[in-house]
Amino acid sequence: MPDRERAQSNEVRIWRNARLVTLTERTPGLGIVEQGAIAAQGGCIIYAGSESDLPVALRDKAEIIDCEGHWITPGLIDCHTHLVHAGNRANEFEMRLAGATYEEVAKAGGGIVSSVKSLRAASEDELVAQTLPRLDALIAEGVTTIEIKSGYGLDLENERKSLKAARRMGVERPVTVRTSFLGAHALPAEAKGDKDAYINAVVNDMLPAIAAEKLADAVDGFCEGIAFSPEQISRVFDKAKELGLPVKLHADQLSNLHGAALAARYGALSADHLEYADEEGAAAMAKAGTVAVILPGAFYFIRETKKPPVALFREHGVKMAVATDCNPGTSPLTSLLLTMNMSATLFGMTVDECIAGVTREAARALGLQAETGTLEAGKWADLAIWDIESPAELVYRMGFNPLHQRVWRGR
Amino acid sequence: MPDRERAQSNEVRIWRNARLVTLTERTPGLGIVEQGAIAAQGGCIIYAGSESDLPVALRDKAEIIDCEGHWITPGLIDCHTHLVHAGNRANEFEMRLAGATYEEVAKAGGGIVSSVKSLRAASEDELVAQTLPRLDALIAEGVTTIEIKSGYGLDLENERKSLKAARRMGVERPVTVRTSFLGAHALPAEAKGDKDAYINAVVNDMLPAIAAEKLADAVDGFCEGIAFSPEQISRVFDKAKELGLPVKLHADQLSNLHGAALAARYGALSADHLEYADEEGAAAMAKAGTVAVILPGAFYFIRETKKPPVALFREHGVKMAVATDCNPGTSPLTSLLLTMNMSATLFGMTVDECIAGVTREAARALGLQAETGTLEAGKWADLAIWDIESPAELVYRMGFNPLHQRVWRGR
Ligand SMILES: [Zn+2]
Ligand SMILES: [Zn+2]
Repeated sequence: MPDRERAQSNEVRIWRNARLVTLTERTPGLGIVEQGAIAAQGGCIIYAGSESDLPVALRDKAEIIDCEGHWITPGLIDCHTHLVHAGNRANEFEMRLAGATYEEVAKAGGGIVSSVKSLRAASEDELVAQTLPRLDALIAEGVTTIEIKSGYGLDLENERKSLKAARRMGVERPVTVRTSFLGAHALPAEAKGDKDAYINAVVNDMLPAIAAEKLADAVDGFCEGIAFSPEQISRVFDKAKELGLPVKLHADQLSNLHGAALAARYGALSADHLEYADEEGAAAMAKAGTVAVILPGAFYFIRETKKPPVALFREHGVKMAVATDCNPGTSPLTSLLLTMNMSATLFGMTVDECIAGVTREAARALGLQAETGTLEAGKWADLAIWDIESPAELVYRMGFNPLHQRVWRGR
Repeated sequence: MPDRERAQSNEVRIWRNARLVTLTERTPGLGIVEQGAIAAQGGCIIYAGSESDLPVALRDKAEIIDCEGHWITPGLIDCHTHLVHAGNRANEFEMRLAGATYEEVAKAGGGIVSSVKSLRAASEDELVAQTLPRLDALIAEGVTTIEIKSGYGLDLENERKSLKAARRMGVERPVTVRTSFLGAHALPAEAKGDKDAYINAVVNDMLPAIAAEKLADAVDGFCEGIAFSPEQISRVFDKAKELGLPVKLHADQLSNLHGAALAARYGALSADHLEYADEEGAAAMAKAGTVAVILPGAFYFIRETKKPPVALFREHGVKMAVATDCNPGTSPLTSLLLTMNMSATLFGMTVDECIAGVTREAARALGLQAETGTLEAGKWADLAIWDIESPAELVYRMGFNPLHQRVWRGR
């Protein structure tokens, strides 16, 4: 807990006269409490439930906030972003409108490589300055936890710079940041096509240094024809395991390389994208407890037609999270509310699945399920308070932000 | 010009050190001026162009605003909305996620009919209060002119109430409002299935009264199997012509009833939706100068697959506008920036077409091309000033608002 919070840790605050979307796993669906109250102390929830059951002793010493019937959900969690990047790729967007495919743009020297160039040219301070407006857009919609990946640096110095900039997001703003080291994102130009040699550098130089400096909370990779093979990703994951870091994977987005099963084999926190994942992959993920992170922004933006197998995930009991994948090349998306709408509209996810996907399941995808993502005693008091009549409105509207108030760790 | 503006009409204001997207028809594409300036007096643009050509006499007496290299576009124009409505239909959205079609929802007593019930139950003040947050969302993105339709009242009293609420939007906020009477939107329950009798009421009672009270700037209709036939729409349009009101039409959205050609025959300002429009319709629209209003929000939200024939419109020289179609049933969308992205991503419209579609062509679709929609002397000083590096960014991003400042009639 940061010092600025600790100072206030003895105060009790109560949000009363609220309708709660608790998302506890004990209750089905959204775990709604119609006449609810939440009490927090030291930044943590100490009570969440029916207002009538709120202990009187708590109420007596508390600062009371009347929510006037507003809905409260857990603070939103964006569990997959490339938020720290430099420049934008609006020019490639224009190229694609003229008919070029994602892979054609990549082969033409655009794509990730152009973001690498921009990122390397930017200082850490410049990265922070360019990233903050994107973070502020997410925060304005009630985001209280965000995952941020590196992966545009592609050498130790620049990956380090990216992760430092990511960590600074949590200093500049009241938000929880989880970082992922994504050295195995793309091959830098100086590697001259030698993917194995680059993976050597990731495994032998970059990963140990990043781990020693505690700059990453997890290790990610991009398993795809245009990126790295399952074998190369396995080498990265083996090293991550050795260093005690959890893993996650960009898997089966553009083709089926059995990335879902690979992620599951390593007990990954999540496998992400998954448009081409198959039943074997879904079954393996369910068994391993690997969360499926659904990323409709990229699907929509690059005009994919193959949808992730949501029905298979349901059938096998794979937990589904939903995230923006905010990145300059394939998903310049900074609205988690819009992401929910896309998950419903494009993939047929239900309202309950979408809301759980940006709260409880997103927390699980980050390994934070004990700390945030539901309204339950013992978790951080991360709340989003909404001016809506029903939770479905959060998913239904497009380009409208009904956030009434946001609370991060009780404040 | 409202009085509050007139009082300031002698002052000259100059926005200098700006990059202009003028959209004048003299210049190709966006009509970009890299080192530009705009001067306004009395709420109107008196100069727009290269800063070096700005008359010195103007500069001497002016209040000068340094735009620090920001881009200026014309203020955005949302030329097709049902912004005034009561309640929301998030519950139907959940129904559709469970598999029901738009038409099934309509037949189950949901659809427009449920919005009619809510609207009739609301007072004018309640309508205003419920609509303002939606308007504010649009204004926050630089919208300076908006069209608002009636069509959930479906009797004289409630259509009048809707149009009065719409007019009040322009009093409550600094925005230009154009209203359209859309009595021929849907059949109210009390008509007991008799569409001809209801159209009689529209033509003989409602339209003359609305026209006499000057509550509508145009007359709109919904030509579709689930709404009204071309013959019924023709009767409404004949009356509108008689009363001196321009017309527009919801045409060929779900099927091809040759609504595009019908609209053109009446010299309509615009034909809107147009997913099923054919080449004959496009040719007729081009000849009549009827603008094609592209509404990707509804296409996306109701998961249509048939796209409007954008290539045909280009080929025949039909002007294309782009609008939110903000409505509770099929397009709960309050972002014109996102609408541009959808037009590009879903329909392949170019960046230039999207930007012209929410400025110059949207003005044309409202018959306001002499007053707003471009940066040219003689037009209202309606400006949107953006914190972007290139105009393409306005179309490329999703859920991000780079508006730096908005100017309506010089302020
Ligand atoms: Zn990603
Ligand atoms: Zn409409």
